[in-house]
Amino acid sequence: MNSIKDQFIKYIHALQDQICSGLEASDGSATFEEDNWERDGGGGGRTRVIAGGDVIEKGGVNTSVVFGKLGGMAMKQLKVDYEDFFACGLSLVIHPKSPMIPTIHMNVRYFEIYDEKGEYVNGWFGGGTDLTPYYLDKADAKFFHTSLKAACDPFGEELYPEYKDKCDKYFYNSHRGETRGIGGVFFDYLKPTAEKTSEDWMQMTQSVGDSFLPIYSKIIATHKSKTYTPVQKVWQEIRRGRYVEFNLLHDRGTHFGIKTNGRTESILMSLPPTVRWEYMNEPEPGSREAELVEHLKAVDWV
Amino acid sequence: MNSIKDQFIKYIHALQDQICSGLEASDGSATFEEDNWERDGGGGGRTRVIAGGDVIEKGGVNTSVVFGKLGGMAMKQLKVDYEDFFACGLSLVIHPKSPMIPTIHMNVRYFEIYDEKGEYVNGWFGGGTDLTPYYLDKADAKFFHTSLKAACDPFGEELYPEYKDKCDKYFYNSHRGETRGIGGVFFDYLKPTAEKTSEDWMQMTQSVGDSFLPIYSKIIATHKSKTYTPVQKVWQEIRRGRYVEFNLLHDRGTHFGIKTNGRTESILMSLPPTVRWEYMNEPEPGSREAELVEHLKAVDWV
Repeated sequence: MNSIKDQFIKYIHALQDQICSGLEASDGSATFEEDNWERDGGGGGRTRVIAGGDVIEKGGVNTSVVFGKLGGMAMKQLKVDYEDFFACGLSLVIHPKSPMIPTIHMNVRYFEIYDEKGEYVNGWFGGGTDLTPYYLDKADAKFFHTSLKAACDPFGEELYPEYKDKCDKYFYNSHRGETRGIGGVFFDYLKPTAEKTSEDWMQMTQSVGDSFLPIYSKIIATHKSKTYTPVQKVWQEIRRGRYVEFNLLHDRGTHFGIKTNGRTESILMSLPPTVRWEYMNEPEPGSREAELVEHLKAVDWV
Repeated sequence: MNSIKDQFIKYIHALQDQICSGLEASDGSATFEEDNWERDGGGGGRTRVIAGGDVIEKGGVNTSVVFGKLGGMAMKQLKVDYEDFFACGLSLVIHPKSPMIPTIHMNVRYFEIYDEKGEYVNGWFGGGTDLTPYYLDKADAKFFHTSLKAACDPFGEELYPEYKDKCDKYFYNSHRGETRGIGGVFFDYLKPTAEKTSEDWMQMTQSVGDSFLPIYSKIIATHKSKTYTPVQKVWQEIRRGRYVEFNLLHDRGTHFGIKTNGRTESILMSLPPTVRWEYMNEPEPGSREAELVEHLKAVDWV
C-alpha cells in the first residue's frame, strides 16, 4: 500500500484536474492556463489560473508538493521542534464576475515533520472552505452548510459544529467587526488519536475536498443568468476590498507563504481582479447590501 | 513659552489647513470633507477626505491628538516600559486620477511617554514622505529628493542621506523585491542628544512637513494636463495593488493602528480608490512600465 503522503499527492492532483474541468464547464467560455514552478530548496507546484470568463472573472486552483528545511520563523509559526518537513496541498479561490454569485475559497493540505535522522515524527491534515457572497441568498447559505455537514458527519457528528465554529472565528476581519463571508468549515492539526487514524483524517479531508465541485457548480447554476446593475458591481468591488484586507492583514496562510519566501504570484492569486476602497461606505438601512452585512457573523445556517 | 507638545499640536492643525487649501487649489474641482472623531480612552482626530476630483481621485489629510494607556502589544512595538502616552501627528496620502501624476504620502508625528506619577519620561519626533510614480519622470525624482535634502540640510548634512536610506529600506515590498516607489525620507525616535534639543528635532520635522505642499503642487502642475490611455490607467491600478500590499502586509503604522483598535476608516483611508490584481502581470521589456520597475530600488536621485 502507498504511504499516506503518496496517496494524498495523487488525490490533490486528481482533484485539481476534476475541479478545473468542472469550473470550465460551468464557465462555458474561459479555460485554465497552467504554470509549473519549482521551489528552491525542494519541490514545486502547479498553478492554474483562469480569467476573463463569462462566469469567472479571476480564479486559481493550485497544487504544491514541497519539502526541505523550515526556517526559524516557520518552525515557530507551526510550533514544531524539527526543521525537516514535507507539505502538499490544493488551494483555490474563485472570484466570479457577477455580484450575484459568491466568491469561494477551498483548501486541503497535509504536512509531515521528520527528525534529524529523517525519521517521521508526525503528520497532520488541515483544510477548509468558506463562502463570501455579495448579496445574501439564505437558500445558498443553508445548502452550503448542509452540504459541508454531510461531508463531515460520516467521520463524527461532532466535527461539523467544531469546524464551523473554527471557520467563523478564523475568517474574521477583527478591524471591521465582521466575518469575511457566511463561513463554512476550517480544520487543522488533524493527527492520529485513540479513535482516528491518519487514514480516517485523510478520508475526512478528501470528503470536504470532493464536496467543492458539486456545491459550487450548483451555486453558479442558480445565479449565473441573473442580471445586475453597475451599482451592484461597485458594491461587489467594495466588498472585495474586505477580502483583500483579510488576506493581507490576517490570513496566516498568506503570511506564512510570504515570510517563507513562497511564490508570491501563487500566494496572491487569491486577490480579486478589480477592487475599490471608498471612505466610509455604508449601505442604506433596509437595503440588500445592509442585509448582507447584518449576517456577517456566526449564524446557524443548518 | 508653550510646551513642545502644545506647539506641535498647533503646528499640525495649521499644516492640515494649509495643505487642504493648497490641494483644493491644485485640484480646482473637489473639496475636502471633514469628520471629527473621538477616541475611547482619550483624544480624537480630524479626518479630511477628498474624492472624485479633476486631479485627486482619492485622498486624505488626517490629524490626530490622542493620549491614555498603551496596551501590551503597543508597548512592545514601541519598546517602552510605561503605559501612559501622548501622540499627535498629521498623515496624508493622495491618489491622483491620472497615472501621469505620482501618489504621495507624508507623515509627521510626536510621541511622549510618562511614568506612573504622570511625569514626562521621554518624547520623540518621527515622520517621512515618499513618492510613488506610475511612470518614471527622472526630473520629478531629482526635484523631490533635492527638495527633501534642502529641508533637512539646515539641521545637519548627515541627516538626508541617513533618512533617505531608511526610507528605501522601510518602504520595501520584500515579497516583490522592489521598493514601493522612488523613496524619500523616513525618520523616527528623534530624541534630544548632546547636539540636538527636542526643539531642534521639532523644527527639522516641521521643515519636512512644510516642504510637502510646494513639492507636490509643482509635481501636479507639471503633469496635470498630460493625456493618458485606458491601458495606462490599468497599469496604474495594478501598481496601486502593490501600494495596498505594502500597507496591509508590511506597514508598521497600519498594523499598529489596527492592533490598538484605531479608527479603521481613518487608517485605511490610505488605500487607493480602484485597484487591480492580475496574475503574472509583467511589463514588456523596454517599455515605460518596465523602466519604472527597473528603478524601484535604492537610487541616488540627488
